[in-house]
Amino acid sequence: MERLYELSEIADKLLINEKDIPSDIVDEIRSITESGGFIGMAQINPIVGNLEYNAKKIARYIKYATSIKLDILVFPELALMGYPIEDTIARHPIIVEENIKWLNSLAKITGDTTVLVGFVEPRGKYAEGKLYYNSVAILRRGKIEGVVRKSLLPTYSEFNDYRYVEPSPVVGVQPADTIGNFDAYSVEDYPKLYDGKYAISICEDCWNNKEFFDKNLYYKDPIEELQSEVPLIHINCSASPTRVKKEQLKHNMLSFISSHYKTPFVYVNQVGAVDNISFDGSSRVFDRNGKLLARAKSFEEQLLIVNPLKSIGKIYPLTKGLEKSLTEQKVFTLEYESDLERTYKTILQGIRDYFKKCGLKRAVLGLSGGLDSTVCAVLLADSLGKENVFGISMPSHITSDESKSDARQLAENLGINFTEATIRPMIDTTTECLNDLFKTVENSWEGRYKASFTPDNIQARSRAMFLWGISNEFSSCIPIATSDKSELYMGYATINGDMSGGFAPIADVPKTKLFAFARWLNENREEKNAIPEAIILKRPGAELAIDPKTGKPLIAEDALMPYEFLDEIIWRIENKNESYNDFLNIEFVYEKHNSVSKEQKIEWLDKFYRRMSTALYKWSILPPSVIVEARSINKSDYRQPITSGRINYKAVSSDEIKEIIKRA
Amino acid sequence: MERLYELSEIADKLLINEKDIPSDIVDEIRSITESGGFIGMAQINPIVGNLEYNAKKIARYIKYATSIKLDILVFPELALMGYPIEDTIARHPIIVEENIKWLNSLAKITGDTTVLVGFVEPRGKYAEGKLYYNSVAILRRGKIEGVVRKSLLPTYSEFNDYRYVEPSPVVGVQPADTIGNFDAYSVEDYPKLYDGKYAISICEDCWNNKEFFDKNLYYKDPIEELQSEVPLIHINCSASPTRVKKEQLKHNMLSFISSHYKTPFVYVNQVGAVDNISFDGSSRVFDRNGKLLARAKSFEEQLLIVNPLKSIGKIYPLTKGLEKSLTEQKVFTLEYESDLERTYKTILQGIRDYFKKCGLKRAVLGLSGGLDSTVCAVLLADSLGKENVFGISMPSHITSDESKSDARQLAENLGINFTEATIRPMIDTTTECLNDLFKTVENSWEGRYKASFTPDNIQARSRAMFLWGISNEFSSCIPIATSDKSELYMGYATINGDMSGGFAPIADVPKTKLFAFARWLNENREEKNAIPEAIILKRPGAELAIDPKTGKPLIAEDALMPYEFLDEIIWRIENKNESYNDFLNIEFVYEKHNSVSKEQKIEWLDKFYRRMSTALYKWSILPPSVIVEARSINKSDYRQPITSGRINYKAVSSDEIKEIIKRA
Repeated sequence: MERLYELSEIADKLLINEKDIPSDIVDEIRSITESGGFIGMAQINPIVGNLEYNAKKIARYIKYATSIKLDILVFPELALMGYPIEDTIARHPIIVEENIKWLNSLAKITGDTTVLVGFVEPRGKYAEGKLYYNSVAILRRGKIEGVVRKSLLPTYSEFNDYRYVEPSPVVGVQPADTIGNFDAYSVEDYPKLYDGKYAISICEDCWNNKEFFDKNLYYKDPIEELQSEVPLIHINCSASPTRVKKEQLKHNMLSFISSHYKTPFVYVNQVGAVDNISFDGSSRVFDRNGKLLARAKSFEEQLLIVNPLKSIGKIYPLTKGLEKSLTEQKVFTLEYESDLERTYKTILQGIRDYFKKCGLKRAVLGLSGGLDSTVCAVLLADSLGKENVFGISMPSHITSDESKSDARQLAENLGINFTEATIRPMIDTTTECLNDLFKTVENSWEGRYKASFTPDNIQARSRAMFLWGISNEFSSCIPIATSDKSELYMGYATINGDMSGGFAPIADVPKTKLFAFARWLNENREEKNAIPEAIILKRPGAELAIDPKTGKPLIAEDALMPYEFLDEIIWRIENKNESYNDFLNIEFVYEKHNSVSKEQKIEWLDKFYRRMSTALYKWSILPPSVIVEARSINKSDYRQPITSGRINYKAVSSDEIKEIIKRA
Repeated sequence: MERLYELSEIADKLLINEKDIPSDIVDEIRSITESGGFIGMAQINPIVGNLEYNAKKIARYIKYATSIKLDILVFPELALMGYPIEDTIARHPIIVEENIKWLNSLAKITGDTTVLVGFVEPRGKYAEGKLYYNSVAILRRGKIEGVVRKSLLPTYSEFNDYRYVEPSPVVGVQPADTIGNFDAYSVEDYPKLYDGKYAISICEDCWNNKEFFDKNLYYKDPIEELQSEVPLIHINCSASPTRVKKEQLKHNMLSFISSHYKTPFVYVNQVGAVDNISFDGSSRVFDRNGKLLARAKSFEEQLLIVNPLKSIGKIYPLTKGLEKSLTEQKVFTLEYESDLERTYKTILQGIRDYFKKCGLKRAVLGLSGGLDSTVCAVLLADSLGKENVFGISMPSHITSDESKSDARQLAENLGINFTEATIRPMIDTTTECLNDLFKTVENSWEGRYKASFTPDNIQARSRAMFLWGISNEFSSCIPIATSDKSELYMGYATINGDMSGGFAPIADVPKTKLFAFARWLNENREEKNAIPEAIILKRPGAELAIDPKTGKPLIAEDALMPYEFLDEIIWRIENKNESYNDFLNIEFVYEKHNSVSKEQKIEWLDKFYRRMSTALYKWSILPPSVIVEARSINKSDYRQPITSGRINYKAVSSDEIKEIIKRA
């Protein structure tokens, strides 16, 4: 079957580029696939809500799949609408009406190849429950033959399904004439359609096996219920985002299910980024023994052709790290190696898709000679093309010569556009204006700080003024916010300064990982060592203020706490849901190698929670970014009321509580 | 009963201010209430997540209610935790553990008065479904006697209940020993507790009557189910936000239910703002005939004492507009009068609570002499106190003398702090720096705009630089973003400029309503006519650019479209979910009084959707604001992927679709 996959690679490229596939290739592929039982796994990258774009793409795949006589062609969850469409369909129901029209037209071009296309199904204006189902239509021979509806609605982290769709009361295929009028009361009125071959489910429907998971999010298990149909093959239409370590879980779970039910499992996943959320593709097939039989590429559109019953498939490699992470444990570690290729590809896709889908082309960013802007520059050059990136070194009186030359060297190495533009006139003018203004305000208001962050922020905001100016002046260009996750957690970023921008590529990458990432980039990109060693070696600091103790620019770790310690707090909160009192009793990785007094630890923990409480506001105005880690502060993923920021995360003893209540 | 309410007003003030209530007042109230059947409706304003703050408040009410021998004391939904706590409890489960400790301590201080306190109930680590229930504990005689769990989980608009809690499988009271271990499988194991008197439900549980609503969001109706217990009184613990026209709906619905079941209905609502969401209180009682028997104050904490079976209650007035809106129809109208007092009180509470709960005190804003900043200044003065507001007029070369004097006059009228600070040096320096920079960039990049918004934005950003500078330099102070809803819809606001700030008071008020609001403020505030007439009369414009046609500052309506037309589009999308093709066939209010050609209408509609598509990014970084209208673009309420911005909101004909699919 080598030949099948060789030819498919050619066909894929043409499909993606909207070119015709030469008839000799089609003929040769068909000579293999017309024997029956071949499944096309169409891992596509839709634009949410853009029905014309998505339908045209789907139509091209349908025409091709039909021409090579595939048995069935499977698209991801909500393929026609794109996932997640979010509240858009509640406010603009026209889009749902239109998606039915497009679906009907797609049905008309189908032939003998069965096609599974996800769409948003209206439920009738007065039906009880939400207005819509998340459905998959079964298209064949010019018409819609049946429909499957999603039962389990993920509503946590980046998922909000229950905001806009109703869970299906049943599993399996219902007749096409139930579309638009199916609810819990009509379940009994219709016979289930089932051809004895494929059991079809949608995404979360396969994530609730009671034996595999210790903790289940739902009572029902649709796969278990479908098993009563004794299907030959399970098919799942998915839109499942990538997260660190999720690959391991997904692999183990799908393998478990297929072997548990002694039934091959075909899992077709969406690819591409939707704002902050990244879908990695990597669609796959497990055989009836739970063995991986096929896997599509990661982070690329592909039509992978498989035949599970004849054990025909091809396993494309996952990104390097994902393979390794299959065996890793869930502990905090500074060994990031196993996740760096995935991180790289996730962010690259995130940038590329955001720009493409928003009609943008170019990015401008400040190059400070520090780690954050450096890594951002590399990622932008690799995703947008070096000619579309402009790096600007904007030194102030505090900026060292090393920073300037490091920035210049980096830009040269990357081949991006570069210039140096001093912000000193901006600082001078702003400082002068503000000093006058402060004197006036001081006449009316007390509480002027003796040592404020105003001078620091003037620098950061002057730089943002330059970047936004370029964005306003040149078409299709946005400035980049270079803040990293560790510093955002601490609110160590300037509003309208370095944290402002059209996109924030590394907002979900912790600082200790960024160091490893920088080294990885130097070793793994085609051009080796693009990042000057000096940038990786220097201790991070914003170069906005002088440390009175050293007379040199303030080092961030001195203002905050050691990054290793900080990143472990973050990791433990996000991954283990631990809190202040737990931390006191846990030995941090940092503590294994450094002597930390109890007082010092308490000081850092107190500082962490104090700073985080005021960072919540900054999180709420953070530009779109790429969710990379298992959990994040991205507002698509996590929302905490700002007014709850100053709450107590420490345990209070019952005696103390009793006393407080008594005195109240 | 006049005396009861007279004394209660005194007691309320003392309770709110954490003062002891003199024993003679307690004795006199008790002489009335000890006869039995009296219910205390404790409409409190919690800080979400702040268990100590909330528990102390609850404890004070419990002690007082017990001392006057009330039969039952009812707190709002999730009173101990505050609603909505959002994702906080998923990430920081320590807060849930702690809320159980506080609840147990509260139980210990109870006596013969039954107390209903909302709390977050853990479900056991391995229970199927979400980790928590949204529950109400029944406290009495030193212990927890029972528990009620919420069945219907609102998950739309500002509600996200299903993100963090599991729906209860049953209605009614379960035994206290089910706390922490109750799930669908254990329902049968426990007898329902019921004393034949009160049927208790939580918020959304009472919003699903099948006869009242044409469209029901859920299959179950908990109130109908509870009715099988033949209760003497229904009690509902709520946290229901205010929205325009919602008062009318709520009034009609509660009246319908109480008369439908011939059972009095006691509805206790939270008061206060949580970030963007405003709870109005206005707790109330309807008698068995659906007649309003009692209603607590709007936008104030209160303990309203009632006796539904003896028809004892007091009806406090709603805000003026709310009364009127009870009879109004759902059509677009420029007659905003009926909603202006509610709008005023909602925003005042929103500002006050955001500042208080975040530990802030003072606000600084730019006063342009235009309507937006003017209305903001009035609202800030009234909510924070005039001494805590600093208005700064920041003229540029485009600013007219009238604008400057109007701003000064306004500040004088309000008595707020005021100064004038020119931004001309900032503009000169920035422009010079940027011009040099642009020349450099132009050497590498094509696509420099011939006429860009750069000069406009430099002005807006220079002003923001001043305001954020003051915020950095003076304690407890944030700058105010003055953008209004109409302009935000059109992206007519500068990033890092006028749309940046710590809070955005009028981000959900459309421009045509702002005009009416300004007049209302002039007529209804104690100090009449604080807003100079000239500010209301002038046509809005940002005064950032000169219109080449007139040689005068550009008028916003010329750059956009008439505000009356714009606001009707917005209203129709949000309230009627109408779209482009509908609009073509609808006669707008503006068209009734102005001749609008079809071409003109199409031009405005196209501009609307084009501008809205690029405004989505700006919506995502908008500071916290106050949701005022029935629907909004506030990200607590509405989320649309930015990458879906450029989709087609127009209907495409089936023939056209067919042709596109064919050619794909």
